[in-house]
Amino acid sequence: MTKPPIIRFKDAQIELAHGAGGKASRRLVEGLIAPILGNPTLEDAALLSLSGTSLAFTADSFVVKPLRFPGGSIGELAVNGTVNDLAVSGARPLALLSTLILEAGLSVQTLQGELEAIQRTAQTAGVQVVGGDTKVVEHGKADGLYISTSGIGLVDSRVSLSATSVRPGDRVLLSGPIGDHGITILLARGELDLEADLKSDTRSVWPLVEALIQSAAPGLRWMRDPTRGGVATALNELAKEARLAFKLYEDRVPIRDEVRGACEILGLDPLHIANEGQFIAIVAPEYIEVALEAVRAVPGGEEATLIGEAVENPAGVVYTVSGYGSSRVVDMLVGDPLPRIC
Amino acid sequence: MTKPPIIRFKDAQIELAHGAGGKASRRLVEGLIAPILGNPTLEDAALLSLSGTSLAFTADSFVVKPLRFPGGSIGELAVNGTVNDLAVSGARPLALLSTLILEAGLSVQTLQGELEAIQRTAQTAGVQVVGGDTKVVEHGKADGLYISTSGIGLVDSRVSLSATSVRPGDRVLLSGPIGDHGITILLARGELDLEADLKSDTRSVWPLVEALIQSAAPGLRWMRDPTRGGVATALNELAKEARLAFKLYEDRVPIRDEVRGACEILGLDPLHIANEGQFIAIVAPEYIEVALEAVRAVPGGEEATLIGEAVENPAGVVYTVSGYGSSRVVDMLVGDPLPRIC
Repeated sequence: MTKPPIIRFKDAQIELAHGAGGKASRRLVEGLIAPILGNPTLEDAALLSLSGTSLAFTADSFVVKPLRFPGGSIGELAVNGTVNDLAVSGARPLALLSTLILEAGLSVQTLQGELEAIQRTAQTAGVQVVGGDTKVVEHGKADGLYISTSGIGLVDSRVSLSATSVRPGDRVLLSGPIGDHGITILLARGELDLEADLKSDTRSVWPLVEALIQSAAPGLRWMRDPTRGGVATALNELAKEARLAFKLYEDRVPIRDEVRGACEILGLDPLHIANEGQFIAIVAPEYIEVALEAVRAVPGGEEATLIGEAVENPAGVVYTVSGYGSSRVVDMLVGDPLPRIC
Repeated sequence: MTKPPIIRFKDAQIELAHGAGGKASRRLVEGLIAPILGNPTLEDAALLSLSGTSLAFTADSFVVKPLRFPGGSIGELAVNGTVNDLAVSGARPLALLSTLILEAGLSVQTLQGELEAIQRTAQTAGVQVVGGDTKVVEHGKADGLYISTSGIGLVDSRVSLSATSVRPGDRVLLSGPIGDHGITILLARGELDLEADLKSDTRSVWPLVEALIQSAAPGLRWMRDPTRGGVATALNELAKEARLAFKLYEDRVPIRDEVRGACEILGLDPLHIANEGQFIAIVAPEYIEVALEAVRAVPGGEEATLIGEAVENPAGVVYTVSGYGSSRVVDMLVGDPLPRIC
């Protein structure tokens, strides 16, 4: 087996695309950050073993603009995003910390609204916010409010997830319709002359993941919440790491008409759009039926769908096939059509 | 015993002082954030019990300006600040996560320098950076780089720390000279016509704390790293929580001439100035000698000093006495003479 090519980061300055979750982000992380920090993984959460228990430990920053949007707000994202990183590591979320960077001049009413959103969302997700920190920067320096959230979860002992355990023939389970969050944010900015009856999908996916683990743990290979960069970027990363390909049944991918319509007008691929309440699970073929049934039985999981499968070749590639026999390669997100989506 | 008064937060908008670590910060945290999040503590780290093990879990944001200063940089602060929050909770630091908010236009050279600082500082502190996250905001929106760091530590089982265990007669141990960090940052901004041969004290205090625990764990009541708001604010908070007073021997508090001089010129009290490599420990009187000896035996702990003691009255107050018999009350920091110190 040959080693994957070494990624070099040669850019002279940081651009918005470096934060978009696509190719530029990957180059920044794999070409600069990971080599310096000596931490070559791109996983959603780090796993720590402690007196026989496996803990997942994760952190994310949230800089979404606008702060509030249909279906949610930065406070809800900050809780659910961290909860979901734990969930797709197979970990029941235990505790969160939330650090706030506030802009001088932020209205206390706005702050109070987001604190209440954090508390309400944490309660719904069954997790406690156990502490945090607050800093204030000058007016004009933080767009109101940035939040960083970190979380600890307890990894279910029945679960063993890794990219390298994925085999050709494994199935791709998607928990529900894609693109709702990204398109909602884009429309909420009001910069486009577009309207749609759409809201962010922000939610905890733990109840769905828990059902999946209980029904199909031995067949569960890998999970990811396809946020920045969308389903296409998550599966491209997996394809490269696992050195195999993914064939997606394009017609089966659940996408709301409003998302499809907006993407057509804007020239975006729904597979590149961020989600904040969905996950992808790679499941061994003999477990896929029971897995789908289990997720669909949970409220909010009714639209879980088998959207594709792992195949041997061409390694590192994600492609779609449609009912009409057409096929196309779906690359990682390039550039940043949607800055500050989360 | 009467309940402490309920703090109400009535401000309409956020000001820089709310992030300064003094009275305004306390009102924001105790009057708004803590009540909403249902988390009434102001501790440096949350403690979680997990299959017989006690874990400390902490997070902080760093927005220091300038990014680099004599003796350190934002990357070093981000590691040491989190390591020290774990240390003063009696926890050996295990793992860190670091989330970056980058401003578009940031030079990659600067970013690389801070990543290297994070890695080097983590290595020195004996802790691993196990992951993180990167977001990018538009040019003009983040002053180059903000960092949030979260950490997990393993609480030493010999230690039991709490404000309510502090008793009159307990001694106040300070690990070394105060004010170096805050005054260094102030001078590094170049806004004052002042120069001094001074550098930040940023470092991990864990080696000092570890020696203290090994020698004096049964007599160790409470610890805190006096960052924003300085020694005065940390002890005022403790005095209010423990409902007793602290008498400080003003002449004994170690302060470098450069810090004392700058404070005199600027009308600042060194007891209010931020430190990033010191801690205060409250130690039972029968353990104070062995505690001092242990800390002084560790490189960097030579200047550890007994600076005061807990007394019964007036409850909630910190005051100094000097060799000449003069005495003054030292309140918490009010306002924000030093914005964005960490």
